[in-house]
Amino acid sequence: MESFELNILGCGAAIPTTKHYLTSQIISLKNKLYMIDCGEGTQLQFRKMKLNFRRLEHIFISHLHGDHCLGLPGLISTFGLLGRTSDLYIHAQSDAEKIFRPILDHFCREIPYKVIFNSFSPFKKELIFENRSLSVHTIPLKHRIPTVGFLFEEKAKSPHIIREMIEFHQVPVKQINRIKAGEDFITEAGDLIPNKVFVRPADPSVRYAYCSDTAYFENIIPIIKDIDLLYHESTFTDKDIKRAKETFHSSAAQAAMIAKQANVKKLVLGHFSARYPDESVLLEEARTIFPDTILASEYLKLKI
Amino acid sequence: MESFELNILGCGAAIPTTKHYLTSQIISLKNKLYMIDCGEGTQLQFRKMKLNFRRLEHIFISHLHGDHCLGLPGLISTFGLLGRTSDLYIHAQSDAEKIFRPILDHFCREIPYKVIFNSFSPFKKELIFENRSLSVHTIPLKHRIPTVGFLFEEKAKSPHIIREMIEFHQVPVKQINRIKAGEDFITEAGDLIPNKVFVRPADPSVRYAYCSDTAYFENIIPIIKDIDLLYHESTFTDKDIKRAKETFHSSAAQAAMIAKQANVKKLVLGHFSARYPDESVLLEEARTIFPDTILASEYLKLKI
Repeated sequence: MESFELNILGCGAAIPTTKHYLTSQIISLKNKLYMIDCGEGTQLQFRKMKLNFRRLEHIFISHLHGDHCLGLPGLISTFGLLGRTSDLYIHAQSDAEKIFRPILDHFCREIPYKVIFNSFSPFKKELIFENRSLSVHTIPLKHRIPTVGFLFEEKAKSPHIIREMIEFHQVPVKQINRIKAGEDFITEAGDLIPNKVFVRPADPSVRYAYCSDTAYFENIIPIIKDIDLLYHESTFTDKDIKRAKETFHSSAAQAAMIAKQANVKKLVLGHFSARYPDESVLLEEARTIFPDTILASEYLKLKI
Repeated sequence: MESFELNILGCGAAIPTTKHYLTSQIISLKNKLYMIDCGEGTQLQFRKMKLNFRRLEHIFISHLHGDHCLGLPGLISTFGLLGRTSDLYIHAQSDAEKIFRPILDHFCREIPYKVIFNSFSPFKKELIFENRSLSVHTIPLKHRIPTVGFLFEEKAKSPHIIREMIEFHQVPVKQINRIKAGEDFITEAGDLIPNKVFVRPADPSVRYAYCSDTAYFENIIPIIKDIDLLYHESTFTDKDIKRAKETFHSSAAQAAMIAKQANVKKLVLGHFSARYPDESVLLEEARTIFPDTILASEYLKLKI
């Protein structure tokens, strides 16, 4: 069973540089891929990271600034040329379809699959997707235009069956699923064997939140409380806090304060302004507040 | 005086790969840049080639397939973020404005400069731009959708003044421009000194044609007759001629036949399908017909 993995395709802000591509990341879980944001150049990063495009069915768009979504038409067109036939879902604010549909109607009119927009309100926390493996909630953020983050939560997993005990007590195969579901077992002799004899606890379910772009915004803390991993934008350092406030972005210190108050396990900083040739200033600033912080970088794969 | 230089930003067909970016090239002449086509990723290539975006005022779009123009919104947005204030002209078919204006109105509404569309008919050869340095004509091509190439012609240059003869015959400074324009000189004593005494012939004017995307199309031959450099698409080899015909593309051999019949000085092949891991097959195929052929490649600079 493939575990939860975060792939960073791009983590630069506003303008692609020789150092950073524009924002996009992909969660890989149980043989499926889930994309968050799709800046220009994402299709090329997708290819470079050797991810299988057929496994991608859902794209989540945080907000309608170009650096987070202008890679969509090219990606969709390329999937068509590569022979995709299964539907592709784009989860975004309702404006997204209004903006992109005419572009797709022109540039992607020959693609052999359907692009389906699933729209949500950016103003309230909402369950926008779930399947057997995970659920996705929006996280309303504070930016110049309506913006959401996304909370990805793996569904509760089944406990591990202890094979030897199943054999020892001669549990019929057809009852194993009931034991996985928590039931006790009654032997042919009528003895009750408690459930805990047969199972070890399930692996914990992973919870990951993507919060970009946003100003410092404490409202998100209850939503991301105790999660395993937080990706929080840190476009600037605290020295440039004036610019951060003007543009509704965060400093590295502010990202760390959010991580600390939310008691997350680990923080990944991203969405870096091109003004910092050495991004270790961002890392150091955050680590003084929240030590378990790392910097995002293109091609980074984080198994959670 | 800066000479005519062709810069290849991308020369791949349809899908960007780890080998080729999508189509874009830039002509540099007398401190100005002229872009032809703008596939996704062009803004990054622009940056990597260290070209100065402030020198770009005119973009020419051959046709409205995504791999030739989907880089426009990102490029235009980035120019805005970098503080551009001077107008940017996009020369394209009239549909281009209809398609891109809504995108620009959304994603580029805060840019501090104007984007002006100059539309032309793709069905006839037409002068679509000229300034003191050059003129640009369209070249109607044969593709699945209306498509043009572009003929860039440097304006006739002034002859070189022979400084020593000007001094010897004591030509007043104010008369030098008339001599450049071809006039003879009459001395104070009334003697006529013929113009040729004062000048060496002007440098020849460069003529360059871009022809992509197109099937084999002999109608273009009279338009590109005797030019210095021809960029002609060669998406396929002759082995894949069936696919070339179906998709209205050319083989390398066909590009070479056009070059030969038009008596051009040099041929650059481009718009390569990703199916050829070794593009020397394209080069060899063309060279058997037209020896002075080279392959385009990203970051190639050709001084003409």
